[in-house]
Amino acid sequence: MTVTTEATGSHPLFAAHEKTLTQALDTIWRRGFWSAYPESPSPRVYGETAAGEGKAAFEAYLGADFPLDQPGDRVATESSPFGLPLDVRYPHTGVDTLLGNATAALPGWRDAGVEARVGVCLEILARLHRHVFELANAVQFTTGQAFVMAFQAGGANALDRGLEAVAYSYAAMTRHPAGAHWEKPQGKRPALAMDKKYHVIPRGVALLIGCNTFPTWNGYPGLFASLATGNPVVVKPHPGAVLPLAITVRYAREVLAEQGFDENLVQLAAEAPGERIAAELATRPEVRIVDFTGSTEFGDWLEANARQAQVYTEKAGVNTIVVDSTDDFAGMCANIGFSLTLYSGQMCTTPQNIYLPAGGIDTEQGHKSFDEVADGITAAVRKLTDDDARGVELTGAIVNDAVRDRVSAAAQVGESVLDSRTVAHPAHADAVVRTPLIRRLTVADDTVYGREWFGPISFLVATEGTTASLAAFERTVAERGALTASVYSTDEAVLAAAERVAVTVGVHLSENLTGGVYVNQSAAFSDFHATGANPAANACLTDDAYVAGRFRIVQSRRHS
Amino acid sequence: MTVTTEATGSHPLFAAHEKTLTQALDTIWRRGFWSAYPESPSPRVYGETAAGEGKAAFEAYLGADFPLDQPGDRVATESSPFGLPLDVRYPHTGVDTLLGNATAALPGWRDAGVEARVGVCLEILARLHRHVFELANAVQFTTGQAFVMAFQAGGANALDRGLEAVAYSYAAMTRHPAGAHWEKPQGKRPALAMDKKYHVIPRGVALLIGCNTFPTWNGYPGLFASLATGNPVVVKPHPGAVLPLAITVRYAREVLAEQGFDENLVQLAAEAPGERIAAELATRPEVRIVDFTGSTEFGDWLEANARQAQVYTEKAGVNTIVVDSTDDFAGMCANIGFSLTLYSGQMCTTPQNIYLPAGGIDTEQGHKSFDEVADGITAAVRKLTDDDARGVELTGAIVNDAVRDRVSAAAQVGESVLDSRTVAHPAHADAVVRTPLIRRLTVADDTVYGREWFGPISFLVATEGTTASLAAFERTVAERGALTASVYSTDEAVLAAAERVAVTVGVHLSENLTGGVYVNQSAAFSDFHATGANPAANACLTDDAYVAGRFRIVQSRRHS
Repeated sequence: MTVTTEATGSHPLFAAHEKTLTQALDTIWRRGFWSAYPESPSPRVYGETAAGEGKAAFEAYLGADFPLDQPGDRVATESSPFGLPLDVRYPHTGVDTLLGNATAALPGWRDAGVEARVGVCLEILARLHRHVFELANAVQFTTGQAFVMAFQAGGANALDRGLEAVAYSYAAMTRHPAGAHWEKPQGKRPALAMDKKYHVIPRGVALLIGCNTFPTWNGYPGLFASLATGNPVVVKPHPGAVLPLAITVRYAREVLAEQGFDENLVQLAAEAPGERIAAELATRPEVRIVDFTGSTEFGDWLEANARQAQVYTEKAGVNTIVVDSTDDFAGMCANIGFSLTLYSGQMCTTPQNIYLPAGGIDTEQGHKSFDEVADGITAAVRKLTDDDARGVELTGAIVNDAVRDRVSAAAQVGESVLDSRTVAHPAHADAVVRTPLIRRLTVADDTVYGREWFGPISFLVATEGTTASLAAFERTVAERGALTASVYSTDEAVLAAAERVAVTVGVHLSENLTGGVYVNQSAAFSDFHATGANPAANACLTDDAYVAGRFRIVQSRRHS
Repeated sequence: MTVTTEATGSHPLFAAHEKTLTQALDTIWRRGFWSAYPESPSPRVYGETAAGEGKAAFEAYLGADFPLDQPGDRVATESSPFGLPLDVRYPHTGVDTLLGNATAALPGWRDAGVEARVGVCLEILARLHRHVFELANAVQFTTGQAFVMAFQAGGANALDRGLEAVAYSYAAMTRHPAGAHWEKPQGKRPALAMDKKYHVIPRGVALLIGCNTFPTWNGYPGLFASLATGNPVVVKPHPGAVLPLAITVRYAREVLAEQGFDENLVQLAAEAPGERIAAELATRPEVRIVDFTGSTEFGDWLEANARQAQVYTEKAGVNTIVVDSTDDFAGMCANIGFSLTLYSGQMCTTPQNIYLPAGGIDTEQGHKSFDEVADGITAAVRKLTDDDARGVELTGAIVNDAVRDRVSAAAQVGESVLDSRTVAHPAHADAVVRTPLIRRLTVADDTVYGREWFGPISFLVATEGTTASLAAFERTVAERGALTASVYSTDEAVLAAAERVAVTVGVHLSENLTGGVYVNQSAAFSDFHATGANPAANACLTDDAYVAGRFRIVQSRRHS
């Protein structure tokens, strides 16, 4: 009987992908630009046949049993925001079976050692990348993202975030040596000498609870961090967006099996309609890690009740823009307009509250009144959405009825700045498409703007001036949290004051975005996502702390 | 208004101590032997006058108001295990005042930047080291440790553990740059270029809840990790061991004030008898970090109730020795005997359960029966304790009545192997001294040995053989946790099996200790303390994960 938690010699898959890993780590510590997975779906990048093959692979899943050899009857719960009949039938594996299988798979994966696990994870990412068009179609038709965004955010960028998690995990697991010689002088007596081994061991079974809008982008960091650090992962997708994670599980299991590992290291926990097995899974003693993206209500419930586990949550927040002044009025309006329009505001990073002095702002075009700023932003949104065929390539479709109903409800608050428009999708007759809605509020309306209205809904909040805007920014983010904040000002003192608020309430800040970078986008290896320092998330999804607690070190020592 | 969370230029105290920091980090990553603070109290190391001056400084505290300028009436709660009247009167500052002061102190400390904070922490350690004899006396007379142990574990080694925490914190906070330039190519268009800043921000107020037996050694990792990462610390000592942490707070505040920082960054939360303010403090919204060493009952309560905070606990456990065989019978018995005798078993790392085949074991002296092994261990304990004057320098005194009463209760279970003896301390007539008690049990008595009997109490548990011993080891540690485990065997297969159990239940293992290294001792920078992987602790006190969650990163970015 031998313990091989630190397998010696490089695993072939580790060697095969080591250059990618090294580049990822180098970029993480420098935080410059890099991407391992090209985000352009162009045939010049991926070849002439890739898009068609991916679409065909996606279509082959529809109305059929999904190819996953897990036990159980079959369940289908998805309905596409684009109105496409999906009816993919997934294995409905019982909770006891899932957790029993995961527990049984743990020792072999733990004992395989760091390099084997990291090598396999990198190979899974490479395999998923080979199927990135298939993945992009699955993301598009379950989340409502337009194709290019689904390819980028749901495909290439999600893979980058997965790679980032593997890289952080590798760095954390190898920061200490696998063994050491220790020798303590004892004056004239012989030194005390010990040989020590440091075993990396996983916490236990990890549970990933996926979300409806970004099943891969929000799911991959936790999935790959848990798997790389030795924890079997049970993937519980949102019932409305199963396919992207089912495809992920499929190829992960394929790679695991090829490499002689137990494929139950990654399992899909599809549920029957209304079954709500996430709560049951999350509170089982075997489950020691939970990653969750979704509602504040369930996130808070998990933090309070899944106490046997380390729980990482990303929840609702109130993202903010403070507009003080600008030297590029057109650029500012275009940038904000794009941010509000992209995926019709259904990003956890989309701005909601735009604080703007009631008396207007100074610009390079002279003073602009509140209404002129409002007009500038609405014009930018209209420019992006007035043409239906072009607009839907940016807005995509509305992910579910709750968002659609929220748009209707939002039309009843404050005053209209820009009404939402129902768009007939040129290619998908049954798609539910809505353009952004903007309402005008005053700073007194904090019962309205002080909570999240997820969807294509934003508020232009009239304040007494930038000091009041910053105060509202600080108050709402401290109370409700936020994933993003943004400020426009030509005054360095205002920018510094905004930065001070951001540091105080713990939210990432973008300053004077007027070009091709948007507040709702973050770049892998460079931008952190969430902070863990405000109520919108209890962790950053892309830092060292996010992986550090997923494994433990167990030491053994003996005399040399 | 400027934000200076990343102060530029090296802080003078950082520069002054940088070599120590660098050496600490180098040792942490290598995990060899090193110590920054000599553990020998010899005059040849510390000078002829150091011991006397430290004793005098300690005695000056007795029966007096402790010199700490915190508001409140005065409270005295300590009684010395050595029977010395202490009656040190500490400021009794109210909870609201403590938390208000700590909250007010946070922004300045956060904005001072990493190097200033780390430099100040290193200076506090250096200041405490200058007062190490004073500290050692305080540890001795509040915990009951004998002087040399108090000097080593409570002084020099505790400082090493504090330095280790500062070093981990520095590494974690500087793993990412303070700023970065990011440039994303855009084909023929100009690249997107951003300048980014990454601010390290603290979680909030940290609460340290000290223990009775190792107030400094168990307290310094959390105290210094929290402080270095920017969190003001409220130090709530055990009512029976206030002085060592009061001295710590005194000199920390002295250094902070000298450097122009708010001395309320470190405050003492002394409590009136029976007041139990730890629970009140731990559940206040301002408190975002709790470090606790103590009972499983209160540790579990904290984990369940202080949900607004990151809670790190070290609790009770059942430490284990599996005896299978040995090629150094005398060395084994001497080593085990010493481990049981040191500080009369009042270490969280002292072995309790010694699993031994009922049929005896093979040794280099031939087969030894169960009783012969028992005799060997008892003889070793007697050799260390039969002479009262020499014995008390190893056992010290019994920390409190609960331990004393537990020794009496233990005399009623199983069969006697070695009775505890009441010793009259030659120098301290009122000291409460007890020598180790050993009882014989069988593997069926798991209601007895399956829980912690903190104090000079251990059990020789007769098993059917080593397989049964390993099974009992695995079962008890999985259920009740452990901080240490140890195995004696000449058979590599048995050692490997023991290591496999240790990895499975997540406990550090020592193999065949027969010389001057003891299972209850761990070396800073090399040995991890606790794993976080079994019920005895939810964290390792000395690893990267222990500091990673104490701060967050907040980013700001703008176009270049």
